[in-house]
Order: sequence, then structure tokens, then C-alpha cells
Amino acid sequence: VTAGAGRTRREAARPARQEAKRPARQETLRRHNLALVLGEVAVHGPLSRAQVAAATGLTKGTVSSLVDDLVAAGLVRTLAPTRGAVGRPGNPLALDPGGPVGVGLEIDVDYTRVAVVDLTGDVRQRRVEVADHRTSSPEASLASAAALVRDVVHAATRQGHAVAGLGVAVPGLVDTKGLLRLAPNLPGWESTPVLSVLHGHLDDGPDGLPADAHTALDNEANLAALGEQWFGGHPDLRDFVYVSGEIGVGAGIVTGGAVFRGVSGYAGELGHVPVDPDGPACGCGGRGCLEQVAGQEALLRAAGVPVDAGTTTAAPDGSVATLRRRADGGDREALRALEAAGHALGVAVSALVNVVDVPTVVLGGLYAALAPWLRGPLTAELGTRVVASSWAPTQVLVSTLGPDAAVRGAAGTVLRHILDDPEAYVPAPV
Amino acid sequence: VTAGAGRTRREAARPARQEAKRPARQETLRRHNLALVLGEVAVHGPLSRAQVAAATGLTKGTVSSLVDDLVAAGLVRTLAPTRGAVGRPGNPLALDPGGPVGVGLEIDVDYTRVAVVDLTGDVRQRRVEVADHRTSSPEASLASAAALVRDVVHAATRQGHAVAGLGVAVPGLVDTKGLLRLAPNLPGWESTPVLSVLHGHLDDGPDGLPADAHTALDNEANLAALGEQWFGGHPDLRDFVYVSGEIGVGAGIVTGGAVFRGVSGYAGELGHVPVDPDGPACGCGGRGCLEQVAGQEALLRAAGVPVDAGTTTAAPDGSVATLRRRADGGDREALRALEAAGHALGVAVSALVNVVDVPTVVLGGLYAALAPWLRGPLTAELGTRVVASSWAPTQVLVSTLGPDAAVRGAAGTVLRHILDDPEAYVPAPV
Repeated sequence: VTAGAGRTRREAARPARQEAKRPARQETLRRHNLALVLGEVAVHGPLSRAQVAAATGLTKGTVSSLVDDLVAAGLVRTLAPTRGAVGRPGNPLALDPGGPVGVGLEIDVDYTRVAVVDLTGDVRQRRVEVADHRTSSPEASLASAAALVRDVVHAATRQGHAVAGLGVAVPGLVDTKGLLRLAPNLPGWESTPVLSVLHGHLDDGPDGLPADAHTALDNEANLAALGEQWFGGHPDLRDFVYVSGEIGVGAGIVTGGAVFRGVSGYAGELGHVPVDPDGPACGCGGRGCLEQVAGQEALLRAAGVPVDAGTTTAAPDGSVATLRRRADGGDREALRALEAAGHALGVAVSALVNVVDVPTVVLGGLYAALAPWLRGPLTAELGTRVVASSWAPTQVLVSTLGPDAAVRGAAGTVLRHILDDPEAYVPAPV
Repeated sequence: VTAGAGRTRREAARPARQEAKRPARQETLRRHNLALVLGEVAVHGPLSRAQVAAATGLTKGTVSSLVDDLVAAGLVRTLAPTRGAVGRPGNPLALDPGGPVGVGLEIDVDYTRVAVVDLTGDVRQRRVEVADHRTSSPEASLASAAALVRDVVHAATRQGHAVAGLGVAVPGLVDTKGLLRLAPNLPGWESTPVLSVLHGHLDDGPDGLPADAHTALDNEANLAALGEQWFGGHPDLRDFVYVSGEIGVGAGIVTGGAVFRGVSGYAGELGHVPVDPDGPACGCGGRGCLEQVAGQEALLRAAGVPVDAGTTTAAPDGSVATLRRRADGGDREALRALEAAGHALGVAVSALVNVVDVPTVVLGGLYAALAPWLRGPLTAELGTRVVASSWAPTQVLVSTLGPDAAVRGAAGTVLRHILDDPEAYVPAPV
């Protein structure tokens, strides 16, 4: 699984360096086997060397040599010896949380969020900045986002981590070449070269990105979906739609474990599925789009809660928290608005499920926070509107990652890049 | 590209027969090369033997031997010699229209349609029967459909064709195992084993299917989409949605040349995308689904045209023809209904395009017949509602196959099966 776009400078430079040293075929084999062993530890660890050998078909000697290299690279660590099933002491191998990390950056409509994630999926550093990007230029927004990234790179480096790269989540349409074409809720962001601008801010200094950093840009709902799949608490998520509720509403459609992107990369624009075709005008040019009816600001307004830009789902004193409190207290205006939003969400998600046929919906962002009130009307609409619902009811789950889903998915694309091809991170044998 | 389900008895029987004769490896090679040569002729023909050798990398001797076999099997024929570009006379090779044929059967809500299609894509036999399947049992409908199939098998056999199999199109949800789970407009059709029932009617007699026939069942919109791609007049259709307008409305989503089926096979249920969430009740259980607003009967009623079940798009004296005549004559009720249907279609298709990101819409069935009136409002809705429309406007095309699209696609799945693996149709060399 790769994000919308990626590049690694080390990758381009590698072949020449290595060909000079050793025969190409042996090089390729080692590269392949490093990935094989690391992948086995990542998916099924902790595992003993003998178990890795059995699972991969490699000899124990080869496994031991490769494991030594992976341990030296900080990708794998040896846990304390335990007594195995057959009574012999084992030294289980697991991914090393002290090794290379990925940085995830999310620029959403009214906040910026950054996280450093280690190979085991744990968040080592996190920064959240309230920032209404509708009222600043893309250049200014990206400059302050870059400053947050420098901040966490600095902190992660001090903790001894190597920073392997940066994944970036944006609330808009990212094409298959990695260009942000349009962000319907951020008028100035059109054909914005987000990664190039960030590289301009981050390519030097001790708290910048290393020259061989892997960077990637993708839609925030796609990355949140991947974050949920890779790091979330629902087992065996492989075919689902992650519904990202923020000021804008998006969907990350995952089929067979990979994001379904459509022909140009723009698939999943759930927020612009019409739920009230003659309804309020939308930034996309249409009318009555889901996000005009059940997006964060529309929902708050309908509930009579003051809308403070920047009071994201995560803020304990924000508008969404106020809405939750009122709903908990039985406020009729709040409950009515939530029920209407749940029905609207159900109409749009039913359309999506009828069109793409996924068995599971994961509610994320705002919708995860408000799931207790939305789930009823949403499930009712799915039950009546999804054609296959009588024998294949759509399952509704709630994101387990909360507001971290997109940054963890963004950082995860960097970690996946390491796991898929770790050789660049492993010193060549002398 | 394979349809929802397929089986070939000859395939199951083949290995044992052949292993007795010759080494498996040589057998596999010949099988592969037969498909390679036939595929080259199918895609790029007419071609000389030398051109086939150059394109496939096989020696001229091998190509000649394989071509002789393919000619003997009636899959390829040698055209009259022509003078080639380099001045030497060539004997161009092309697919043989006198060779094996596929039968396509479409059972829609109010008609049954059958066609025999040869390897070049031409229709050799066609039968259409007006039959409202809502008022008969699945058993009775399938019995009369089987009689139509026997009729064309008889005629095709008399013309000297070998019948290679039967593809069946139904207006409902076909799962990935080939079972019709539900047809929202045909209440009795639930978990109906369509292929088994048809086999029961067709498995013996000179006008039945041969014992080794390839049979497959799929949704009618999926098969119409494939028919349009394989045999239609729009070049390079590989990423598009075919919108099938009948009493029910469906969509065949094609990405990268293959039908996008979703997890269970139910993708593309465009007819049940809500366009008026509080609108009229639908057979699916929902309200205001597209087909309740812009399906054939809804549209005719809105236009004030009497609805005669069985008066399909194709019938020159049918209700749709009446609607066309009235619209041509400027009848205001007809024009108003068509405009409203075009807008409703635009709302639903915009939702689909926003969700799956396809660049092209092909109007089929009823919507092809009424395209002159629907295209304006449809294009207007796509232009305002599709998020990517400002730089990637959705292209709207009209099906070139008319009411034959689904039967040609259904027969085409049989022909594809021959082209993908022709060896079973080629006598083994002595």
C-alpha cells in the first residue's frame, strides 16, 4: 500500500553504490530476504529466530545473519528470553520502538496536527495547533506546519530516533502524482505543491528532514482509513469505508487492504454526495451536499451551539464538547440536530455502499465523537436503503484512534515504506 | 475479465485426457502460445503470420503451426492475399466469424432478449420476447427463456456454428459465486439458482447446450458495460460507468478494463442512490431512490404517457417511442418530465462519480434512447456537483449498442473465455 505520491532520494542513489561492491544478484536476494524477515516479525511477532526460519523457509543461519543486521539497524530488537512451548528458552524478536520513526502531519481546515510514530505504531511526539487555514495563505499555513514538524523532528532526534520521512494529510483532492488539486473548504489551496513547499522549509538543519527522507501526500480520509487499518483496535479490517467527519466530510474506501483511489485519485468524496439536492449551496459548486447538512459547522449551527473555528473535536472546551454535553443533558435542539445529521449521513453512506459494496463503515473524527447519537439513525437508513442489507447488513464501527487517525496513517506510510524495503536502513555488510 | 461466475466441464475433464498423451510442460507451452497468437490476431488483426511472429516473439515456424491449428478449429481464418507495406503479398489472419459462437441471454423486468454473437462480435441471431417477469414465477420465466435459447442454438447450429456457451444477464444483485441474491423489481427472484435451472432446461437434445459449454451469470448493467467496451463504437473505453436505464436503473463500473464488483459483487446499485430522500417508496425498502424518480415507468408516468409493461425501449410502437415522439413534437409535459429525470440522473451520477472517480459516463438502454433530452440537465448537474469537474469534466457518451448491449456483453463473456484459453477448442495434434 502506497500513498498518493512518494519519493526517496536514497532509492535513486542506491543501485550505483551497491553495484560497485557486490554482485547484483546477491544484493537483490539480501534485499528481498531482509524484507521477508522484517515483515514476518512485523505481522506475527514476537517470534523466535527458529519460528522466523520456519515461516520464511530460510535457513536458521541466514535468518540469524539477517536478524543481526536488522537489530544493528534498530529495526528489530531481542526481547528478554522466555520459555517457549517446547521448553527451550527463546529470544523473541519484535519491532524496535527505539528505531526509525515516521512523522505524520495533518493540515485540516481549522487545525494542524503532527505526530511522530515508531515502528510499533506508538505515538512518541504529538503537537496540535488550532489554526483556521481558511484565513491564512497556503504559504503561511505550510510555514507554520513546517515549524511544528521541525519541533517534533528535534524532539525525536534527541530521543535517539532516526527520522525516516514525512507523510502529509490534507483535506482535499490529491491526484495520483501527489499534487493537491483542490481543497473545497480552503479556497486558496488549488494545485498547491504541498510537498515541494514543505521540502523548502525542511531540507536543512539538524531539525529538518534528512536528505533521504521518504515523503508522501494524500487525502486525510484515505490516510485516516489506513491509520485505522494499521494501528486501530478493530481486527481484520480489510474492506471498509472510513468516514471522516470534520468541517469537510470525506471517505477513505479500502478494498482488499488498499485504498481505492479511482482513476485520478479523487475517489471517496462522500462530503459532496447530495443528500438534499435543493439544499444549501456548497463550496464545491453543488447544493445540499452531505457536508452542508451534516458537516461539523452545519451540525453545530443546527444544534444551536456557537461555532468557534479551531475548536476541533479534540478540544475539551470546544464546540463539539459543548454539543456532547448538551446532548448528554437531553437538550432537545441538540438531540434533534444529531438525529437529522445521522439520517443525512445514512442517506449519503447508503449511496456509497450501494455503489461500491463495502461491508463495514468506520465512523471517524467528529462522527466518532458523536457516535452514540448518530449510530441509531445511521443504522436505520443503512438498513432500509442498502439493497443488500436484508442478508448482508452493513456493520457500523467507531474509530479507535480518535483525532490521531490521519496523522498515524500519514506516519504509517513512512513506516510501511521501511517495512516493505528495509535495506536502505540497514548498513551494508563489510 | 470474467463474469460473476463461470464453469466449463471440459476444463475439469481436460488434464487427465491430455496428460496421458504428452508431457505436461509441452502441453502448457502450446496452450499458452495458442492464446498468445489468437489474442494478437483478436486485438490487432488482420495480421500476417510474420507480423504475429514479430509481435509475439515466436518463430515463424511455430506461429505457422499454431495458426494452422487455429484455422482448423474455426477460430482464425485467412483472408484474401493483399499486398503488404513492403511489397510482398501477405495472407492476413483474422478471427473467423464462422467459428464458435457465444449465446447471450438477458432477462429484464419486462422482456427477454437472446443473441448469438460470433468471434468478430457480430450478432448472428436475435430474439426478443415481451414478457413481464413480475407476473410470472422465476420457474416459468426461465423455462420460456430457455426455449428462446434452444431456438437460437438450433438456428446457429444449422448455420454451422459450434455453440461455446451461454452468458446470462439479470436485473439484480449477483454475488461473486454466481448466485442471484435479489432482483428488487422482481419480487419472486431471491437466491434463485438461475444457471442451474437453465442447465436443467438446456442440457440435452441437439438444440441444447453442449456438455462442455461455458456458462456465466452477471448483473445486466455489468454485462452491458462489458458489451460496450468490447463491441461498442467508442474507442479506448477502459474507465467508465455504464448507466443502464430500464424499469430498474443500474450501473456497470469499469476500472482498468475490468468490472469493479465490490466485496460481494453488489457494486453499482445506482438505481438505489437516493435523489429525493423523502420521495416515493422503492422496492428496495428505501425512499426516493433514483429509479423511483427517473426509472422507465416513473418517467413515463411523469410525462403522462401510458405505461404498457413490455413496451421496451426497442419497441417502435412502445411507450418510450411515444415519449420520444411527444418530446420531438414539443409536448410540454413530456419535456418537463425529461428535464426532471435528467436532473435526478445527474444528482445520482454525480454521487457515483464523486465516490468512485471515473472520467466517463455512458448512457445506456432507456437513457441512450432519450439522450437528446437528458444530456443537458445531466451535464449541468455533473458540472456543478462533481468536485473535480472544474479541471476534469465528466465526459457523457451514449451507448452505441442500444438494447443489444447486455446480450452482447453476456455472449462476449463466452467469447472471451475462448480467446483467453482456446486450447479446449483446438483439436490436439496427432
